[in-house]
Amino acid sequence: MSDSVPASLAPPDLEAYLHEKIPLTRAMGIRVLATGPRQLVLEAPLAPNINHLGSAFGGALHALPTLACYAALWTLVREGGLDAHVVVKKSYANYRQPVRGTFRAVCDRPPPGIAAEFLDDLRRHKKARMDLESVVPGVDGRPAVEFHGSFVALL
Amino acid sequence: MSDSVPASLAPPDLEAYLHEKIPLTRAMGIRVLATGPRQLVLEAPLAPNINHLGSAFGGALHALPTLACYAALWTLVREGGLDAHVVVKKSYANYRQPVRGTFRAVCDRPPPGIAAEFLDDLRRHKKARMDLESVVPGVDGRPAVEFHGSFVALL
Repeated sequence: MSDSVPASLAPPDLEAYLHEKIPLTRAMGIRVLATGPRQLVLEAPLAPNINHLGSAFGGALHALPTLACYAALWTLVREGGLDAHVVVKKSYANYRQPVRGTFRAVCDRPPPGIAAEFLDDLRRHKKARMDLESVVPGVDGRPAVEFHGSFVALL
Repeated sequence: MSDSVPASLAPPDLEAYLHEKIPLTRAMGIRVLATGPRQLVLEAPLAPNINHLGSAFGGALHALPTLACYAALWTLVREGGLDAHVVVKKSYANYRQPVRGTFRAVCDRPPPGIAAEFLDDLRRHKKARMDLESVVPGVDGRPAVEFHGSFVALL
């Protein structure tokens, strides 16, 4: 693909788009598992993201949820019929346990009312802010990483 | 190198160690520019870290200062004659302007008194916490990214 947008928002098309346009997503082996109306889910294997301690490098543990939130917001914008740029403005992450295998980042979409207000702001002001959270699940049902990001979309 | 520590803390040895042990640092093209007593400086080219907008991917903009702080603390620990693991516990980043070329992350070492207290804590309690900051300089002397991280060293 050489267009400025993916062929569709289905996982294989979004994944191919990310791999082409953001080479680090290919180096990290990132896969797009879900782009549905409720969640965006990404996955990465340990090997390309490992550190000298045999666990996932902190940089990779932050990049995956950043991208999950980014892609969730971007698909929301696209579904709203808009072609906006999305940029990350602030991020906060809490690293609670090491990751020693394939890991995922799950970003829950904002509730419909919040999403509608965001799209309305974006149409009206050509700019809108959205705070999103993403979790990298760890073992025993506890999160390995809790990520919070503030994103801005610009028309 | 296949040892668990680099041959020395000089930039070329630390760089080779990072590239071997943390494959993402090689994929990002990270170079170690300085490991001196005052600053640790890393650099990365844009091409492997680019996004679909032609600027640096937010994940890469966070990974470089994370690694700069990590390496600064790790070299401090090694210079103190200790062989500790260093892990990132929390991070906060403010992305102030896009990056459209080669970028650096600069981590100032903590003042000598703080460093000595940290090493003393580490020897005594087998664990010590250190907060560090790193900046990715942008154009016009303003920061592109301000990073703050809380790290823990474990003996």
